[in-house]
Amino acid sequence: MNGAVLYQRLAIIGCGLIGSSLARAARARGMVGSIAVYDADALVRGRVEALGLADAVCEDPREAVLDADLVIFATPPLAIGPAAAAVAEDLKPGATITDVGSVKAAVCEAFAAVLPTEVMVIPGHPVAGAETSGPDAGFASIFQGRWTILTPQAREDAPYLAAVATLTAFWEALGAKVELMDEKHHDLVLAVTSHLPHLIAYNIVGTADDLQEVTRSEVIKFSAGGFRDFTRIAASDPIMWRDVFLANKDAVLEMLGRFTEDLHSLSRAIRWGDGDKLEEFFTRTRSIRKGVIDAGQETAEPDFGRHRGEV
Amino acid sequence: MNGAVLYQRLAIIGCGLIGSSLARAARARGMVGSIAVYDADALVRGRVEALGLADAVCEDPREAVLDADLVIFATPPLAIGPAAAAVAEDLKPGATITDVGSVKAAVCEAFAAVLPTEVMVIPGHPVAGAETSGPDAGFASIFQGRWTILTPQAREDAPYLAAVATLTAFWEALGAKVELMDEKHHDLVLAVTSHLPHLIAYNIVGTADDLQEVTRSEVIKFSAGGFRDFTRIAASDPIMWRDVFLANKDAVLEMLGRFTEDLHSLSRAIRWGDGDKLEEFFTRTRSIRKGVIDAGQETAEPDFGRHRGEV
Repeated sequence: MNGAVLYQRLAIIGCGLIGSSLARAARARGMVGSIAVYDADALVRGRVEALGLADAVCEDPREAVLDADLVIFATPPLAIGPAAAAVAEDLKPGATITDVGSVKAAVCEAFAAVLPTEVMVIPGHPVAGAETSGPDAGFASIFQGRWTILTPQAREDAPYLAAVATLTAFWEALGAKVELMDEKHHDLVLAVTSHLPHLIAYNIVGTADDLQEVTRSEVIKFSAGGFRDFTRIAASDPIMWRDVFLANKDAVLEMLGRFTEDLHSLSRAIRWGDGDKLEEFFTRTRSIRKGVIDAGQETAEPDFGRHRGEV
Repeated sequence: MNGAVLYQRLAIIGCGLIGSSLARAARARGMVGSIAVYDADALVRGRVEALGLADAVCEDPREAVLDADLVIFATPPLAIGPAAAAVAEDLKPGATITDVGSVKAAVCEAFAAVLPTEVMVIPGHPVAGAETSGPDAGFASIFQGRWTILTPQAREDAPYLAAVATLTAFWEALGAKVELMDEKHHDLVLAVTSHLPHLIAYNIVGTADDLQEVTRSEVIKFSAGGFRDFTRIAASDPIMWRDVFLANKDAVLEMLGRFTEDLHSLSRAIRWGDGDKLEEFFTRTRSIRKGVIDAGQETAEPDFGRHRGEV
């Protein structure tokens, strides 16, 4: 499928699961003239070269961004600020600068602190991914049908609005749906829909692994009872998630506080044998599921993560 | 696929997701001569009749168990004891009596209290299921490749051992792998691999739904970030799960206590910005995932629940 070329030159800084998926998808759909990639890890650069994902694999990030019309930072969240600082003086005036970080307020601040005013800064976050990581794990359809959230700056000038429109068209050409949002609200929404679920999944897998009375092999053997879903989420990239929790600390701790309060209340209902309360609560949560299915957020495409939701 | 007839007459008491799956699978594989079904709910009986799942749909459970060689209680856990008491006097001497409840110590006690000594009591639990419920939701392949845990009594007499062997063959013919286990250990293993994951999933969906700052439609829209997996688990049958938490209270509260301690420790690491601790923890949990995949507990068969595990 070929569309219009939206950017003559695309630079991707950081080429893991998302960066390499962007390279694959942008090239497959003919949306960019050429692609330059930089990654801090020489092994990753070697894989990108071997996979033929880019026109240029650079050893210096400043070389990658030179003359680029679109620069996408696809590193873990806390590496975005330093990576942007390293190339700030080499960015083409008027270029669009974005990222794919799962936290946005911290990235917006980091960009504002180091980038020149002549570039169009439009932070972003594709709400898509997989438990796998690295350039070999990427795939072009990863953004298909998923939301990408852009958190533009408070600018109303025509060139900036045009840049936002072009970046929106870029994501839509990748198959994504685009929503504009304030960066602080983004961090609150994602704290509950993504960050807290990951924290809880990591935590329960850790709790299970520490048990003396139940062996790891038993945990694995009988994981179809529900635990298995958590192991998939808890297999996500450790560095990226470390950065997410550090960079979105306040919203995550706020959501975690509410979650813990609610859990204490359920725990009390169990201890005191309050069956009515449990039944009422479990009935209410069921209706959310219907919303997820109705909104098409549960896909039926065949892929690596498919499985039954079991009890 | 037809195998040997293992039981001339099968009675299923309670015909929801699991009961109806048993009826479908046992008939499809020619493992029983005839099937009698009882369900306390007239609507369910009507659906079982309409779907043609049984040779006899009975309005009285005593009629269903009459002359049955295998009686399977497939009601919610706390309904098993009363259901067994209601038919105790009508059971055929020598018949095998089992169940599919997700808790075992409470069921073992209930059976011991009401059943006559002339029957072969072998409680069981297929670690399989789906977020759906009711007789329309069942399907014959649900037990395929899954573990069924049997918790036999401390009997060594030849007729009892023969009954255990036949029931094992029955589950294996349904595609399940069978493990024998002490009922108390079962409840501990399942508390961590199934009961706690469900409690946490129910809880986070409730927490998300109560937020003022984030709307339900936003939660649903951006659920691909991890939350979606929890909505599937939290859509499981409310009555069944109410019973599980009430009937396995001690083990669930014990696991919940450990989970909460661990969560406080992670919470503290976030608050104090301890990136090393977070990274080390998230790296460790990743290896469990490999065990789940290696053990074949993540299936690749196409089905309704398939989706990507996303970040």
